Amino acid sequence: MSKQTIYYTLTDEAPALATASLLPIFSAFAKEADISLELTDISLASRILAAFSDRLPADKQAEDGLKFLGDLTANPEANIVKLPNISASLPQLYAAIKELNAQGYDLPNYPENPQSDEDKDIQARYSKVLGSAVNPVLRQGNSDRRAPAAVKGFARKNPHSMGKWSKTSISHADYMRDGDFYSSEQSVTMPSAQTINIEFVAKDGSVDVKKSLPVLEGEIIDSMKISCTKLRAFFEKSLEEAKADNIMWSVHLKATMMKVSHPIVFGHAVTVFFKDVFEKYGDLFKEIGVNPNNGLGSVYDKIQSLPEAQQEEIKQAIEACYATRPELAMVDSDKGITNLHVPSDVIVDASMPAMIRNSGKMWGRDGKAHDAKAVIPDSTYARIYQETINFCKTNGAFDPVTMGTVPNVGLMAQKAEEYGSHDKTFELKEDGVMRVVDAAGNVLMQHDVEKGDIWRACQTKDAPIRDWVKLGVTRARQSDTPAVFWLEEERAHDNELRKKVELYLQEHDTNGLDIRIMNYNDAIRFSMERIIRGKDTISVTGNILRDYLTDLFPILELGTSAKMLSIVPMLEGGGMYETGAGGSAPKHVQQLMEENHLRWDSLGEFLAVAVSFEELGIKHNNEKAKILAACLDKATGKLLDTNKSPSRKAGELDNRGSHFYLAMYWAQELAAQTDNAELAAKFAPLAKELAEKEAAIVAELAAVQGKPAGLSGYYHIDLAEVAKIMRPSNTFNTALASL
Amino acid sequence: MSKQTIYYTLTDEAPALATASLLPIFSAFAKEADISLELTDISLASRILAAFSDRLPADKQAEDGLKFLGDLTANPEANIVKLPNISASLPQLYAAIKELNAQGYDLPNYPENPQSDEDKDIQARYSKVLGSAVNPVLRQGNSDRRAPAAVKGFARKNPHSMGKWSKTSISHADYMRDGDFYSSEQSVTMPSAQTINIEFVAKDGSVDVKKSLPVLEGEIIDSMKISCTKLRAFFEKSLEEAKADNIMWSVHLKATMMKVSHPIVFGHAVTVFFKDVFEKYGDLFKEIGVNPNNGLGSVYDKIQSLPEAQQEEIKQAIEACYATRPELAMVDSDKGITNLHVPSDVIVDASMPAMIRNSGKMWGRDGKAHDAKAVIPDSTYARIYQETINFCKTNGAFDPVTMGTVPNVGLMAQKAEEYGSHDKTFELKEDGVMRVVDAAGNVLMQHDVEKGDIWRACQTKDAPIRDWVKLGVTRARQSDTPAVFWLEEERAHDNELRKKVELYLQEHDTNGLDIRIMNYNDAIRFSMERIIRGKDTISVTGNILRDYLTDLFPILELGTSAKMLSIVPMLEGGGMYETGAGGSAPKHVQQLMEENHLRWDSLGEFLAVAVSFEELGIKHNNEKAKILAACLDKATGKLLDTNKSPSRKAGELDNRGSHFYLAMYWAQELAAQTDNAELAAKFAPLAKELAEKEAAIVAELAAVQGKPAGLSGYYHIDLAEVAKIMRPSNTFNTALASL
Repeated sequence: MSKQTIYYTLTDEAPALATASLLPIFSAFAKEADISLELTDISLASRILAAFSDRLPADKQAEDGLKFLGDLTANPEANIVKLPNISASLPQLYAAIKELNAQGYDLPNYPENPQSDEDKDIQARYSKVLGSAVNPVLRQGNSDRRAPAAVKGFARKNPHSMGKWSKTSISHADYMRDGDFYSSEQSVTMPSAQTINIEFVAKDGSVDVKKSLPVLEGEIIDSMKISCTKLRAFFEKSLEEAKADNIMWSVHLKATMMKVSHPIVFGHAVTVFFKDVFEKYGDLFKEIGVNPNNGLGSVYDKIQSLPEAQQEEIKQAIEACYATRPELAMVDSDKGITNLHVPSDVIVDASMPAMIRNSGKMWGRDGKAHDAKAVIPDSTYARIYQETINFCKTNGAFDPVTMGTVPNVGLMAQKAEEYGSHDKTFELKEDGVMRVVDAAGNVLMQHDVEKGDIWRACQTKDAPIRDWVKLGVTRARQSDTPAVFWLEEERAHDNELRKKVELYLQEHDTNGLDIRIMNYNDAIRFSMERIIRGKDTISVTGNILRDYLTDLFPILELGTSAKMLSIVPMLEGGGMYETGAGGSAPKHVQQLMEENHLRWDSLGEFLAVAVSFEELGIKHNNEKAKILAACLDKATGKLLDTNKSPSRKAGELDNRGSHFYLAMYWAQELAAQTDNAELAAKFAPLAKELAEKEAAIVAELAAVQGKPAGLSGYYHIDLAEVAKIMRPSNTFNTALASL
Repeated sequence: MSKQTIYYTLTDEAPALATASLLPIFSAFAKEADISLELTDISLASRILAAFSDRLPADKQAEDGLKFLGDLTANPEANIVKLPNISASLPQLYAAIKELNAQGYDLPNYPENPQSDEDKDIQARYSKVLGSAVNPVLRQGNSDRRAPAAVKGFARKNPHSMGKWSKTSISHADYMRDGDFYSSEQSVTMPSAQTINIEFVAKDGSVDVKKSLPVLEGEIIDSMKISCTKLRAFFEKSLEEAKADNIMWSVHLKATMMKVSHPIVFGHAVTVFFKDVFEKYGDLFKEIGVNPNNGLGSVYDKIQSLPEAQQEEIKQAIEACYATRPELAMVDSDKGITNLHVPSDVIVDASMPAMIRNSGKMWGRDGKAHDAKAVIPDSTYARIYQETINFCKTNGAFDPVTMGTVPNVGLMAQKAEEYGSHDKTFELKEDGVMRVVDAAGNVLMQHDVEKGDIWRACQTKDAPIRDWVKLGVTRARQSDTPAVFWLEEERAHDNELRKKVELYLQEHDTNGLDIRIMNYNDAIRFSMERIIRGKDTISVTGNILRDYLTDLFPILELGTSAKMLSIVPMLEGGGMYETGAGGSAPKHVQQLMEENHLRWDSLGEFLAVAVSFEELGIKHNNEKAKILAACLDKATGKLLDTNKSPSRKAGELDNRGSHFYLAMYWAQELAAQTDNAELAAKFAPLAKELAEKEAAIVAELAAVQGKPAGLSGYYHIDLAEVAKIMRPSNTFNTALASL
């Protein structure tokens, strides 16, 4: 039996810090099953450095960890544990570059308006780092996400807080009724493999080939646009309505993942809300480099180059806008950070569930929670939030104690349906026609477009769809739960998809299974009607709904999506185990820096690594790996039951402390099991030692808290420095080393 | 060919007044096709008189018109045009008795607490007159209701007013989540014809047979209860919630048709809202005969027997209640009549659509429209209103110009499902068990009950269900429209019904038809999603939903349910053509009395009589009848197009004037048609004369308006007197007589 490897990822922010404490534990235990854990750096900083390796001296170069793992996905032996990473917005990219420069890495600035070939090359390299850059590379399979039984059981016994809903709540989701992606979608299924062109035809008839796309037989190609004029009119109308109705206004986008389209949409929200300011200072703003797509923060940032008096004038003009507009939801009312300051601050898939969990309220300038109009321009998915809000107004808040669960099977492989986050999205510079033309020159789809419209295409290959249908049926069978394919009658894309779903369903024995195809509103309503009756329903969805639903339901059911088990059974036979869909938690890092307390919960890692061990055990007939997995799951359950998860409060048990308890319980389970005497004997001393020294270790871990932790890097951390911070208990470290 | 007869009904209030003008026109035209129209009096007054015929002198006796028509329904030749009548509440009954007494009819008072056998007999006779007393006798078939094409077309071209909906409306429907009929329903299908017993078992084990019911093989029997304790707790909670949320409170019941259960429910609403008053003065109120089931009006009425000072004290106590309670919706804010004054003032099937049409608002004390909590205790049907409200908040108000239509096929024959309006509803006097026992002594269903609970049973025979399924399929085929059977998975009754529906559907060719079975919420949502896209959907429902939906959708689509074509194809082969589901319009009578203007719209009568003629034409191969029908429909269309419907304003065209125009257009159509020369020749002079004298006639009809019309009776009208009022144009009368 050859040496087996788990590829563990070093990512960003809280999960990266936690890794410094947790990975040594996993490694120490794993080596007893002849398994090693290899760490691969795919942090934002490392991805930047890799992108510019040829411009850096040898000692400053970084391995391209993402490329390494991407290549690995084609290997049936691949076993990757993927922690959450930053999907960088432009402001985050700027900050990372700044930090790396300060650390002595000679990186060029991001060119906002590249003119030279060199600048264009630089921008192209950075663009590959921005937004959802990691997932499309690694997710070479479809997605299987669910709440593990131990986690669901724990949530039922220890329900998280859930804000009550009033029948008279005025909160709602607001979306475009016309002119959005949903209204304009077209879709075709390719009859043969070929190269198709995305073209812009100008008013003068000239044709500009924007992109050539090789496509496969049976691949679904969609195209759609959002009208700039209608989008801006929608924002204006929704602002006027909110003002008249005296309701707080907030915008919910996904500017990180949908890195091309959504920053533009966000920019329109900013310039419409502050239209008086942008009308008056528009030219000046252009001069000094204000980019509204980067939010109001960009204005405050860039005007610093102006004389004080002029800065003050602009600030007053901004303040004056607030008087003419509805109250704006705040991200941080203490610091005056609004919903329009930073595009990455309000990410719809997390912000809407948070609002729904918080009685439909968002935070106002007064630091209090208020009902809000949640503006989500594209109606494709916005409607599910309105449906949920209506449901909560009618039935009251969901009850974590009694509610069922909605696991997800998501169509994700081979970059399926990564709407708007890719190279097929264009902001139109002039009026004309956008069209998709096949190899023979036939126009497959076309849209009349105007300057400012956002047009995009999207690809979904056939093989992933077939695999996804199979995964849906498998999950329905394994958990004996109804499975609903969310396919909308009024969406061209879904109608193409539906044909394949109906075809591929025939390849499976669905006898005795309850498998349905429903419109989004019907599907979410059906799932919610079941959930309040304690019943489970598998959602089988495309990629965006996978993304949205695996936050929405977990946050309602479990309080966080970080506790979900997230498996990517890869098309080539390997497996990826993702953790912590809840993001990389910048606020946690801030708390660590201020008071050396890390409240990140590594539960997701515990669950993922258990499945990772189990998979190796099955694949390589490694009995010890299977036992490690089973005992890790039991330890996780015990950790939950004994409430040894991190506290939010400095001085109490934090991330490090919970790792200690996991290690102790895991060792105890291994010592107690009778399937493998060798393992039991190996772990018995550690189990004993940790139990005896529990008080001392917990005291050591608590002692360091309450004062700032000195972190010299935020984006580009020094692992040795972080290890010192994250492993402050000599007693624990020594015990672990004795294995 | 024998003489053919249309049985036209004399009912109450506005439609009865209109009949004095319209019937002579129908009769004059009909006799040319050898058809006579016979008038049968089924007014509330005539039904009272018939009930006490044996106690009245010969010259004061009345024929039992309802019995006559009831017998007629068994005749395949039956052709009945049924106008809307009063479903009398107790206060209406009192007023009618008072009026008849004043007219010299020696009728006994209604005994509120009958002790003697005589009083019990009197109460029993009056009980047969109360509530929905007419429909169960006449509706010997299922129901087919739709908006005729001409009416729908007219509404699209001339949309009625429709209040806008705000996304921030706080209006909602509130209903019980537990303890209501919905939560407790049980249902069985009888395996054989037999007599079953409804029994009460007291705590001491004694059994009281409340009712013996002969049932048929295949008949569905349901039982259910509403908990008095939970109902009162629900009212209290909803009042406290409304107070806290600062929303107006209103209660929506059906105290007329559900004449046993809903007055009791209404009474609980009154005594909970005014609980301080009823706690303090409860004993006194009992002494002086206050019946809260008759509303707050009963308090004001009965305290008149008390000394002035005490009256004043009680009135102040009532006023004091308002301060502790949420604002109460008003029926008439000018006169201070609240939602709780009179049980028959707010009838859910009309009041909820009116609220939805009025932006979700009801009227407050200030005479202005406000958002409201609409309290509809039983969740069986209340949920459809909440679904509709959520839909309007999300999608805005329905647009009469573009919306589709929702016709209804209702299961109604042989008194199917007349919940709560019958002799199988009981208010429990003590704790115990209510049960249904079959002939062999087996307990079929049972409920634990407490004092004050309302328990009821319900019967639905098999033959009507089979006929209803057939009618549903027929309508789907004839109008090429999807048909949805509204059957709720969670209702015991509907699950029994569903088995039969699935069975009887197999008797029909449903090839190419879209026939579905859906839960209520899903069904109304499906219908609404279609309606806003201009698509039609047939609702195939039980009787209560027939009642509710044939107000809800018509009021939204057409502004009134009075314009619906309502056909009852009777099981025995005859037909009944019902008009004006919008009620008998007491406000219209008031306007006639004050300013001699009747704004009642006889459109429903025009439509019904046309179908009535058509049916005679087909059945008896009477070509002239068919032509009369076709020309009447055309005349109705022309009347709509030329806006000759009654105005609401005195001095303008009223009911009488619209009858004149109908006659003129009808005569013109008959004169112009070429299918029957005899008829054309017959009507040509009349057409000519009416056209020539149009101005004179309209002037004569207008001249009488603006001053009070002297009506000596309200419930018991003098037809000769009414004829004088309703036929004031000598020119028109003379022309008509010339036929």
